[in-house]
Amino acid sequence: MSKIALPTTSGIITLLTDFGTEDGYVGAMKGVILSGLPNSKLVDISHDIRPFDVHQAAFVLNNYSRNFPKSTIHLVVVDPGVGTKREGLVLQSGGQYFIGPNNGVFSYIYRSRKYEAFRIQEKKLGTKISHTFHGRDVFAPVAVRIGKGEPLKSFCNIFTNLYSFIETPEDFKKGEYRLKIIHVDHFGNLILNFTFEDWQNLGGPEDIKVQVNHSFVKGIKRTFGAVKEKELVVTWDSQGYLQIAQNCGNASQLLKKSAGNSVRMTIPKSEN
Amino acid sequence: MSKIALPTTSGIITLLTDFGTEDGYVGAMKGVILSGLPNSKLVDISHDIRPFDVHQAAFVLNNYSRNFPKSTIHLVVVDPGVGTKREGLVLQSGGQYFIGPNNGVFSYIYRSRKYEAFRIQEKKLGTKISHTFHGRDVFAPVAVRIGKGEPLKSFCNIFTNLYSFIETPEDFKKGEYRLKIIHVDHFGNLILNFTFEDWQNLGGPEDIKVQVNHSFVKGIKRTFGAVKEKELVVTWDSQGYLQIAQNCGNASQLLKKSAGNSVRMTIPKSEN
Amino acid sequence: MSKIALPTTSGIITLLTDFGTEDGYVGAMKGVILSGLPNSKLVDISHDIRPFDVHQAAFVLNNYSRNFPKSTIHLVVVDPGVGTKREGLVLQSGGQYFIGPNNGVFSYIYRSRKYEAFRIQEKKLGTKISHTFHGRDVFAPVAVRIGKGEPLKSFCNIFTNLYSFIETPEDFKKGEYRLKIIHVDHFGNLILNFTFEDWQNLGGPEDIKVQVNHSFVKGIKRTFGAVKEKELVVTWDSQGYLQIAQNCGNASQLLKKSAGNSVRMTIPKSEN
Repeated sequence: MSKIALPTTSGIITLLTDFGTEDGYVGAMKGVILSGLPNSKLVDISHDIRPFDVHQAAFVLNNYSRNFPKSTIHLVVVDPGVGTKREGLVLQSGGQYFIGPNNGVFSYIYRSRKYEAFRIQEKKLGTKISHTFHGRDVFAPVAVRIGKGEPLKSFCNIFTNLYSFIETPEDFKKGEYRLKIIHVDHFGNLILNFTFEDWQNLGGPEDIKVQVNHSFVKGIKRTFGAVKEKELVVTWDSQGYLQIAQNCGNASQLLKKSAGNSVRMTIPKSEN
Repeated sequence: MSKIALPTTSGIITLLTDFGTEDGYVGAMKGVILSGLPNSKLVDISHDIRPFDVHQAAFVLNNYSRNFPKSTIHLVVVDPGVGTKREGLVLQSGGQYFIGPNNGVFSYIYRSRKYEAFRIQEKKLGTKISHTFHGRDVFAPVAVRIGKGEPLKSFCNIFTNLYSFIETPEDFKKGEYRLKIIHVDHFGNLILNFTFEDWQNLGGPEDIKVQVNHSFVKGIKRTFGAVKEKELVVTWDSQGYLQIAQNCGNASQLLKKSAGNSVRMTIPKSEN
Repeated sequence: MSKIALPTTSGIITLLTDFGTEDGYVGAMKGVILSGLPNSKLVDISHDIRPFDVHQAAFVLNNYSRNFPKSTIHLVVVDPGVGTKREGLVLQSGGQYFIGPNNGVFSYIYRSRKYEAFRIQEKKLGTKISHTFHGRDVFAPVAVRIGKGEPLKSFCNIFTNLYSFIETPEDFKKGEYRLKIIHVDHFGNLILNFTFEDWQNLGGPEDIKVQVNHSFVKGIKRTFGAVKEKELVVTWDSQGYLQIAQNCGNASQLLKKSAGNSVRMTIPKSEN
């Protein structure tokens, strides 16, 4: 629980919510932060996470957080349990801070990074806290305190009961896997729970075959444009996850598949 | 009409519009402001106000403006009457500035805060003004002038004919009220024109009953999660307005109600 | 290819993409830029360009870029051909920088401004480049290099094979023109490929008549409110393009017309 002197380092505070912008709820959080930390640099990531979709928030956080400099504070407020007993968390990982509810939004961090976890002691914040808007009344004030270099121990204690969800590929039968669509992106690309590392562990088979409904896609291409327009293509996404895309189209709409659905992957003549 | 030296204080300029972002209209305003005030700090509130919906803009402005520090400039450009005789306004309230058209977007400020109001004299701006985009050609340049510390009297005069709309609860009959849905938020919560203060003035009755269509909701709960998932619940919103919500759902879609519709509130054994 | 010392001038980097925000892809680009240029000022223009719509991106870029100060860097990442042979470009124009793919997104700049064009030599960037996300791996790093004042020649070479699309009004027959809808804005205004300058070149005829389906609109009005609510009106848009609007309505929905469709403009008793 070391003290940081944020204003002299990055001063960056990123915001990820499911609030939309149109009610001014995000605006209220921004006002709280800028009132407390006038020199901070607010960075909107997104406010278009589907309402209450902690799975989407967790996946998306993993897409950008590593690209930010040390001492960045990442706020993640997708919080269907606001005002109930779910805890508020602060994580330290790789010199960055992560603030948000204990509902799984940090699942990918738990899996792949070193971190220390703390529970926010709301009573120690000494401010009036509504029961329906902890983004403004708890998480933004915590960001301000961290940004000011206040030690975590003054309003947090160590916590270990972290809620997490990560689904690994299901080894269906020899050479066959049931993969889950863990994310559908803005372009309708279907992102699967199968990483470049998983693939290397299988010996890097070139001839995988992915089946969705009655469509088969063979091989892993370099990029979307490796096939004709409107054809399906399997590539690695920019984080190293396998994805099914339609070149210049929307695979999710074409195949009527969304997050949570499954597809089958076959490795012909598999040796593992 | 005192002079402020904004760059040494907050330098914050917030933006609320119904422009969407996808035409670059907001981008043009940002360019004008940053050209005139290179050190200003632009803060997007929302560009997703429903087109022409001055009621939504007025309500939403009230959700965030108080959270910002003194000397913040709030730009509100929801302006169906652009280019007609409707006036452009500057308000000073609580050390902040509000810039926008005289069409009711500042109604909640008139009701609940101290303010001074001024009319923008467009001819004194000395710039070319289009008839269809005062956000870029009038309101953004006014923000720049204020941000530079230019006295308001050099391009404004005092104005009192302020357009306003605020609907108060309708006292239907003894113990019965017709409440209006004044806002539906991103989560489908139905926000009613009945405040915590209104409720206290009635003696703080615990046993209110809200009726929507054929659904009844009894009592005021602390938060959404106080009822089971998908059940209706009445709570106070984060600004102190009574709201009807569906826990982990969308009350507006469930009840087919939107802003402008009414609901009935009953206070059993009411004594007032 | 002069060196600029951006941090002492504007430090502004604008972002226009078709990414949406909800996957964190824009967030990743922001992280890369802020890691390389901690003092830069990121300005969101829009991430709601229709997926792959380079025509929309090109038109919209023209709506805001001139409003920004010199030394601004404009990033435009609408890039259906990512990972194929399409080139990455840097333009210098009017003291500003434009970075994006060679797919027509800079068409309006080629037509109306002086510029110098360069091709990005990806191999000289010395970083790992994915095949599906050049926004993060090529264009953002190029913005960082330019922002640091690195000379373009260290990672670019001169390039002339610029892809462009601009459609001029079709001179249908004497006094009749087939105009194309080049953009439909957030309010449903239909913006036509006919500029104030085109109109002046025809002698500035007051009595033009625009026909859409079976609707006729006569004359060019000053602003939307010059006609009654819900009536159609023809005005100049804020960039000087002729547009068809419905006052307090949505002309695109009313007339069922979208970008790429045509309308007829007649100049009665035309003398040209």
